[in-house]
Amino acid sequence: MSRLWSANVHTLTPYVPGEQPKVENLIKLNTNESPYPPSPKVLEAIEQAAKSLRLYPDPVSAKLKQTLADYHQLTSDQIFVGNGSDEVLAHVFAAFFKQDLPLYFPDLTYSFYPVYAKLFEIETVTVELNAKFEIDPNDYQSPAGGVIFANPNAPTGHLLGLDAVRQIARQQPDCAVVVDEAYIDFGGQSAVALVNEFPNVLVVRTYSKSRALAGSRVGYAMGNSELIEGLNRVKDSFNSYPIDRLAEAAAVASVEDNDYFEACCEKVIAQREWLAAELSKLDFTTLPSFANFVLTEHATFDAKTIATKLRDQHIIVRYLGAARIENHLRISVGDEAQNQALINALSHIVQG
Amino acid sequence: MSRLWSANVHTLTPYVPGEQPKVENLIKLNTNESPYPPSPKVLEAIEQAAKSLRLYPDPVSAKLKQTLADYHQLTSDQIFVGNGSDEVLAHVFAAFFKQDLPLYFPDLTYSFYPVYAKLFEIETVTVELNAKFEIDPNDYQSPAGGVIFANPNAPTGHLLGLDAVRQIARQQPDCAVVVDEAYIDFGGQSAVALVNEFPNVLVVRTYSKSRALAGSRVGYAMGNSELIEGLNRVKDSFNSYPIDRLAEAAAVASVEDNDYFEACCEKVIAQREWLAAELSKLDFTTLPSFANFVLTEHATFDAKTIATKLRDQHIIVRYLGAARIENHLRISVGDEAQNQALINALSHIVQG
Repeated sequence: MSRLWSANVHTLTPYVPGEQPKVENLIKLNTNESPYPPSPKVLEAIEQAAKSLRLYPDPVSAKLKQTLADYHQLTSDQIFVGNGSDEVLAHVFAAFFKQDLPLYFPDLTYSFYPVYAKLFEIETVTVELNAKFEIDPNDYQSPAGGVIFANPNAPTGHLLGLDAVRQIARQQPDCAVVVDEAYIDFGGQSAVALVNEFPNVLVVRTYSKSRALAGSRVGYAMGNSELIEGLNRVKDSFNSYPIDRLAEAAAVASVEDNDYFEACCEKVIAQREWLAAELSKLDFTTLPSFANFVLTEHATFDAKTIATKLRDQHIIVRYLGAARIENHLRISVGDEAQNQALINALSHIVQG
Repeated sequence: MSRLWSANVHTLTPYVPGEQPKVENLIKLNTNESPYPPSPKVLEAIEQAAKSLRLYPDPVSAKLKQTLADYHQLTSDQIFVGNGSDEVLAHVFAAFFKQDLPLYFPDLTYSFYPVYAKLFEIETVTVELNAKFEIDPNDYQSPAGGVIFANPNAPTGHLLGLDAVRQIARQQPDCAVVVDEAYIDFGGQSAVALVNEFPNVLVVRTYSKSRALAGSRVGYAMGNSELIEGLNRVKDSFNSYPIDRLAEAAAVASVEDNDYFEACCEKVIAQREWLAAELSKLDFTTLPSFANFVLTEHATFDAKTIATKLRDQHIIVRYLGAARIENHLRISVGDEAQNQALINALSHIVQG
């Protein structure tokens, strides 16, 4: 507390990210990073770009926007880029959600949304997921100042079908409907298909999961050019150069090596299905997941206890402890060796 | 314009940064970058850090904060880091300047300040620099919600002495007094010396000028731990990981190679003095500068015309066109060859 702070600062409840431990040789399955490194071509692009670090980056990241536009079959003015999808989302809240009507989002979703809302003093309504932990589009019919949800949702892994997303967009023509697709590359159908159909749909993506570049901090948004212009106005009033030279080079190279990218996504999907099957054999109930993590609950063992015992064996998973999922663990899908080690450790814990 | 924007977005007037031209072989003296590359050790550190890009960076950048704390003889909780000093400044405006009383800054200073103020809906008062384009501390006595100025000031290059900064801090005990020291390493005396003396003084720094890492986007702030906590609360409500892995590694390595850093600063200072002397021979009047640029005016030739003619010869300088400096050019100090080429080109322009 300080009398020198702006008044609102006293009321903030900052987001707490998953632990980034500094010890080596951990099996880290707590923050949904890729178990595979980025393409070797990404590292080559970084080495090349490092030669001109004394110069500012391109403030509008034109090359990255064009690369993403081509990849998604959109135009460059339908793309916005930021310093990780967290920054993109922060600008989304500032640019669209400061309205007279409240912002709607699910009770179980990315827990940064209520944090942004407090920062920007936005009134919110949380909508309960149904009993199967799914978003029901019929629950999003009240006049809203904005709607945001993750799809696939986190921490549930549930994928909302394109028709259901379309229904929400149609129900809310007077506000931005933001689909946070951090995990879409693991088998989901993207709402990018709706961007040219609905002027109010904005799709947000990250390089931190499927593109294996959590350490580079790149995210982006796709939508009608008027929505993108709103984001640009906020960004250019906040930071001229959010994407550094190495991040832009890495992000472009990642998209250019599409074979590598698709192979990694396929490996993660295969590992996810293997993991769910093995968990089932150990009496875990796992929600069907379209993400690179699973949300799972054991028939008898307490989730927090399991997480602690795993940690003793140098395996970190995420115990969120939120309402309705007090006994669930969110486990990132690792590579084959990591997942096997996890299953071995869990066998010992639940079977003694 | 879009009906889907938050109301404030319609009123924003985004900052326009200096051009980052995509053509090669230009002599680029328009955005005050270093003419020298970063230390080779910075490039080694980047190569090393690139091996773990699939993982998130440390959300609190502990190693960078400790490195900067040691360098400035402060403690780690007196350091805040951000994605370029532009992001640091944005968080400063949010964290400290949303007050009942207005924010005070000079009429001629970093032109991003009024842009941030509009974004965060902060009332401002601009205070005229005196006839010599200097900040007069006596002009900052009215009760304020905040004070911010660049020191050395941009685009003037004028350095305010430590006693004058102390006077402003003493006159304004009830608000944050922010000293933006983007250019302090080129001969200025830093207000870091006041951080332990005044709980309201915050000093902001950038890696984009003296540290030759404009392309990496790293800035930081130093102040009383309560001020830093305010910044952390805003940052952790906005973006958990603003500093990427490569930027943190580069920033640490830059501080660790202090001999290289000091040698570069000395070369820039020597080149600045040479440039000012040569400009004088060509009938330019140059303000005394403690920065890595000069603000200069020709006795007879029009500034805009000179800038256009330089551009025809592939040399870019900055014509700002702001009130009171309608006939000035801001020229970044280049290396020996660049400065010689500039002087040769100017000779042809003004002497025919």
